[in-house]
Amino acid sequence: MSTIPAAPDGVEPLVPVQEHLEGILSGIAPLGRVEHVRLADAAGRTLATSVDALVDLPSFDNSAMDGYAVRQADVAAASTDHPVVLTVVADLAAGPAAEVAIGPGEAARIMTGAPIPSGADAVVPVERTDAGTTRVAIRQAPRPSQHLRRRGEDLHAGDRVLTAGMELGAGRIAAAAAAGLAELPVTAVPQVAVVATGSELVEPGAPLGRGLIHDSNSLLLASLVAEAGCAVSEVLRLPDDPRRLREWIGGRAPCDAIVFAGGVSVGAHDVVRHVLAEFGTVAFARVAMQPGKPQAFGTLPGGTPVFGLPGNPVSVAVSFEAFVRPALLTMLGRAQVRRPSWHVVAEVGWCSPAGRRQYMPIALGSRDGRTTARPATAGGAGSHLAGGLAAADGFAIVPEHVEVVAAGDLVEVAILW
Amino acid sequence: MSTIPAAPDGVEPLVPVQEHLEGILSGIAPLGRVEHVRLADAAGRTLATSVDALVDLPSFDNSAMDGYAVRQADVAAASTDHPVVLTVVADLAAGPAAEVAIGPGEAARIMTGAPIPSGADAVVPVERTDAGTTRVAIRQAPRPSQHLRRRGEDLHAGDRVLTAGMELGAGRIAAAAAAGLAELPVTAVPQVAVVATGSELVEPGAPLGRGLIHDSNSLLLASLVAEAGCAVSEVLRLPDDPRRLREWIGGRAPCDAIVFAGGVSVGAHDVVRHVLAEFGTVAFARVAMQPGKPQAFGTLPGGTPVFGLPGNPVSVAVSFEAFVRPALLTMLGRAQVRRPSWHVVAEVGWCSPAGRRQYMPIALGSRDGRTTARPATAGGAGSHLAGGLAAADGFAIVPEHVEVVAAGDLVEVAILW
Repeated sequence: MSTIPAAPDGVEPLVPVQEHLEGILSGIAPLGRVEHVRLADAAGRTLATSVDALVDLPSFDNSAMDGYAVRQADVAAASTDHPVVLTVVADLAAGPAAEVAIGPGEAARIMTGAPIPSGADAVVPVERTDAGTTRVAIRQAPRPSQHLRRRGEDLHAGDRVLTAGMELGAGRIAAAAAAGLAELPVTAVPQVAVVATGSELVEPGAPLGRGLIHDSNSLLLASLVAEAGCAVSEVLRLPDDPRRLREWIGGRAPCDAIVFAGGVSVGAHDVVRHVLAEFGTVAFARVAMQPGKPQAFGTLPGGTPVFGLPGNPVSVAVSFEAFVRPALLTMLGRAQVRRPSWHVVAEVGWCSPAGRRQYMPIALGSRDGRTTARPATAGGAGSHLAGGLAAADGFAIVPEHVEVVAAGDLVEVAILW
Repeated sequence: MSTIPAAPDGVEPLVPVQEHLEGILSGIAPLGRVEHVRLADAAGRTLATSVDALVDLPSFDNSAMDGYAVRQADVAAASTDHPVVLTVVADLAAGPAAEVAIGPGEAARIMTGAPIPSGADAVVPVERTDAGTTRVAIRQAPRPSQHLRRRGEDLHAGDRVLTAGMELGAGRIAAAAAAGLAELPVTAVPQVAVVATGSELVEPGAPLGRGLIHDSNSLLLASLVAEAGCAVSEVLRLPDDPRRLREWIGGRAPCDAIVFAGGVSVGAHDVVRHVLAEFGTVAFARVAMQPGKPQAFGTLPGGTPVFGLPGNPVSVAVSFEAFVRPALLTMLGRAQVRRPSWHVVAEVGWCSPAGRRQYMPIALGSRDGRTTARPATAGGAGSHLAGGLAAADGFAIVPEHVEVVAAGDLVEVAILW
């Protein structure tokens, strides 16, 4: 990153997106605080330290089917035409159970999940029998160990279940429960202040005078912060007044990061740029992307990371996705800070600027059972097309060297909401 | 759907997944109640009715750049070698503004977002000038209308902004704000009761005796219901005791849907199947899928939809994804009840049963910048592999006619968490 004077386009080289991101991430550390939460409260949190199974899973040999536990050798010759009849000596349901044993010529009726009686080494599904309750005709020979789930087959006590940095969704929480855990160590949630700047901004729904617009950026940023698993500590609108901005920075409530929208470009009234520059610890960059070129990142005195994003709504969304979200996920302690991306067919073609990575708002569609993408609006990647955000499912990410996306090309998409 | 006796496998034809889903959806209606929420409270909700812009967006012609508003004809001959000098008659910041006009030979310094003065028909970026404040040298001729954002260019008042049935994410909420809306009509959130059944179930973390396992299904279902945008009205564990189940059904708190896990197969103690069958309004099906074959769906007296899912955790997750989630999204009023799916390269091969749709838990990876998938565990699609849910990012969905997925094949994946 470098400080960019108001130089003619093309004179000052643009910073590649990846380089700008790496500069940010090198200045960001996980918060590091650990909390312990019950499984029921763990959804959406991030695992702080890896956890191991406390029990074997399953913790006892059990039946994978409703049927009969048998000695395989007893019924090795069974067939539909020549069933083998066994004496049913037990009826085993799932649930708390005493030890049971079967001997030669014996079987136990058994339900899915019930412990296998000692002596048994296979389960014959009820569908392969006459379903008898005192004697049962076995109509098909089981393979040895057929339909047995062995103790520890899924996990052994001490096996790693979840690794540090995972986001805890339904499946992972369930796996932790199955492995004997009752609570999990999770990372603290970063508290993020979001500030929309601009003297033109009024509250959503308020009457508009000439020169005024409805503030959408503070809602956009607050929602994006929450979607990233972080907490919004403060939501604010500030006019283009350096004094007001300095006052807020000086007196602000504690938080773990600050995101500004607007005021970072080369304009005379770009107060975020001017005020943040006074600290000497915030760098301004022109990044090789469309939209979102002007970017600011650094720290305030005390070390709070601060982001200055360009003010147009699409630029805010793109800049958040490219830079702020990876930084917040790093603070959260996530192992994976990149969203998975997908390659889908472009329904129509469009152009992308040479030498800049394009983030094109796209809407998903479907053709022949395959997901497709097309620009969300006719207006293209224009950074002021707030209405386009309404139609967008995410962004197509067009590499720097590509200037034309043709209909039928595979394009990379990241899905945001 | 049809009632399935304990018939030998292959005798009773399996119901295709799509047919079973259509049967369920034909019995499900949107709740239909509408609430109005402020934009700040709308995240994750579903839009109840389409909404139109209340204002033009932008609502006045404004500058897309920091620079100078000019009369294009004045500077049509401007170049670096032969700049055209204009008199700067105004300095226009974004924000509340009186009308300003420029005449021949005049320019207005203008910031991004500020209203265009009358008389001006183009904006020259500051980088193409000497940045003067009383007189400015224009070094490049602008195209007509260059860097102007025209009133209504993004949206006109009355244009459709958001359509009924959309999930409200950050971008859509921001678009509503930009279009002049302060609140949105959203659908009521379905209240869903989840019930894990099985006498073998104990609370997560509790000591295990022989035959006992930790209940993971109630947490799994509660998390999945929440991830689907619905509310969990009750979470319950019940033993395999028909009397207890009848009591709960009879005395339950009001809710919009009930999801049972366990007890729907052909076992003698499959009490959910036995008790729900007493109502005569619940159908049991053997569905052509792996895992998740035994499925129950119907309504209780009074009309509450009820799902009976097989009890193994992976089967619960798959059944929820295939049947319950689309039904809950229908109740929510979502226009789109299918998750977008993606085709990615399989890193390794695996087998899938003939004639059944396989849902294979997969972990995502990456190769050459492309997302890839591999089975989450060596155990494959085995329905009891709760530990595998820990490693899974989602499921690969292998069509009924495919019996072998080879390394390098494109497979369809649905990403759950």
